[in-house]
Amino acid sequence: MILTVTLNTALDITYRVRSLRPHTSHRVSEVTERPGGKGVNVARVLAALGHEVTVTGFTGGATGRVVQERLASVPGVVDALVPITCATRRTIAVVDDRSGDTTQLNEPGPTVTPAEWSAFQEAYEALLPTASAVALCGSLPPGVPVGAYAGLVRTARSAGIPVLLDTSGEPLRRGVAARPDLIKPNTDELAELTGSHDPVRATQDARRRGAGAVVASLGREGLLAATRDGRWRATPPAPVHGNPTGAGDSAVAGLLSGLIEHLPWPDRLTRATALSAATVAAPVAGEFDQGAYEELLGQVVVSGEASAA
Amino acid sequence: MILTVTLNTALDITYRVRSLRPHTSHRVSEVTERPGGKGVNVARVLAALGHEVTVTGFTGGATGRVVQERLASVPGVVDALVPITCATRRTIAVVDDRSGDTTQLNEPGPTVTPAEWSAFQEAYEALLPTASAVALCGSLPPGVPVGAYAGLVRTARSAGIPVLLDTSGEPLRRGVAARPDLIKPNTDELAELTGSHDPVRATQDARRRGAGAVVASLGREGLLAATRDGRWRATPPAPVHGNPTGAGDSAVAGLLSGLIEHLPWPDRLTRATALSAATVAAPVAGEFDQGAYEELLGQVVVSGEASAA
Repeated sequence: MILTVTLNTALDITYRVRSLRPHTSHRVSEVTERPGGKGVNVARVLAALGHEVTVTGFTGGATGRVVQERLASVPGVVDALVPITCATRRTIAVVDDRSGDTTQLNEPGPTVTPAEWSAFQEAYEALLPTASAVALCGSLPPGVPVGAYAGLVRTARSAGIPVLLDTSGEPLRRGVAARPDLIKPNTDELAELTGSHDPVRATQDARRRGAGAVVASLGREGLLAATRDGRWRATPPAPVHGNPTGAGDSAVAGLLSGLIEHLPWPDRLTRATALSAATVAAPVAGEFDQGAYEELLGQVVVSGEASAA
Repeated sequence: MILTVTLNTALDITYRVRSLRPHTSHRVSEVTERPGGKGVNVARVLAALGHEVTVTGFTGGATGRVVQERLASVPGVVDALVPITCATRRTIAVVDDRSGDTTQLNEPGPTVTPAEWSAFQEAYEALLPTASAVALCGSLPPGVPVGAYAGLVRTARSAGIPVLLDTSGEPLRRGVAARPDLIKPNTDELAELTGSHDPVRATQDARRRGAGAVVASLGREGLLAATRDGRWRATPPAPVHGNPTGAGDSAVAGLLSGLIEHLPWPDRLTRATALSAATVAAPVAGEFDQGAYEELLGQVVVSGEASAA
């Protein structure tokens, strides 16, 4: 199985309103809820691709119970979340019916106690032996040490399990120094990590800082990869219009599935780019459109070169 | 005990954000949750005044469980909510830190099945014999018939229990025809019921339509009462600044407590007006400021006259 870690899980709630106007009252016409947090999104896409996935991280309170109830109904996903006392956060996306624009309200994460953090580390170590790959995804909730991902990367590497890290800021900086196999920053995260706004230089610099491979997501322009085996750029056929929520998580799922299937890098990047674009094209935020995905697979253009052996 | 009925209970959530700007992302700095819906708010104020209160209505899903957990920690309030399959709605008040202004997002209520509505009616009839008064408060969730309050008013009257109705629109129109002892509309609700925008005429008209007594809330200008015993107007000493959320519910609690204590009308109106103004003055929406309440009790001016015997 593939293990995805979401330390800051969420109950993602979407509200439809006619038009959001500050300091007035709104009737919500439609409410949808689903389990969220980056690693949970990655797991859902991996499961849709036919992989067995185990989800770990934290769950607490009434919102955590809803997250777990909903996860139980996703085929192919096993729930190995670790209980905490504080409640799992909610995120609320308020979508305007008229414009389709979204206003986002993100609750702060729950505070994790030192004992809960220890319990998670034990659960993580117990899950690793049966994992073919690990994805460490998203922000850290309060109480989890800033070096958390660095420690989790080291534990995975000691166990010989390939590890992907998708986070930002100081947790990314420290995590990279622990030498993860792969990181997937967006351009902002990459610039913050390296100080360079030139993606080609920045991906190389991030490798020097410790990442085995770097796949930067360039939004509508696709992916840029710097790896031991070579450098590539994968471009979708045309800019896809839609909701970019979850596009990065779909790219992570594509990269991970390609990794455990031992695909060559150009094929991994094609898959990740097609999944990402098919997620933007899907009507529901964070889902991918299966038809669009299959069509896009034949349309992604990969340029670049393998390193001299 | 006093029985309050809240068919459309809610989990009231308050978010603090720096400033709400549509179509951007916001970090919520503070989250507070409390059980809500008009009858629940009335119960909380009655309990704070020292009365024993039983709360009934519907509860469902994860949000309903949170409402019940929180209710369990309010001294003097007994939970007699009836379970339903659908989840209790949430309301979200987004408060701007800068301006203090509030943006409200109200989920639709849960759909109540005919069997659940029957179960509620049985529970209500079983609770009535031990009630000294009943308050029927707020909107109807989907699935509850529009004549619901009319039926509940009749059942209370048959049992000889004084009944207060605080709702709006067609449920109010039908409920009034069933002859409740007291209604407490605001000016908009009263105008919709009677077609008159003159509160003095409208309160009299509402009595002709079936209400035993009518106490109209005129916002900052206080209360206007038309009763069998006479007509009065109660005015707070000065316009109180603050958050008017729950001020009407505090007025209902004041009127009900005055009713079961058999206070003369001017004293009931003084209490209701002081509680209402002390709720506007309180820092937390829907709570009342005990100190302000006691001070205001001596400052409310009641004018009017008793009817000739």
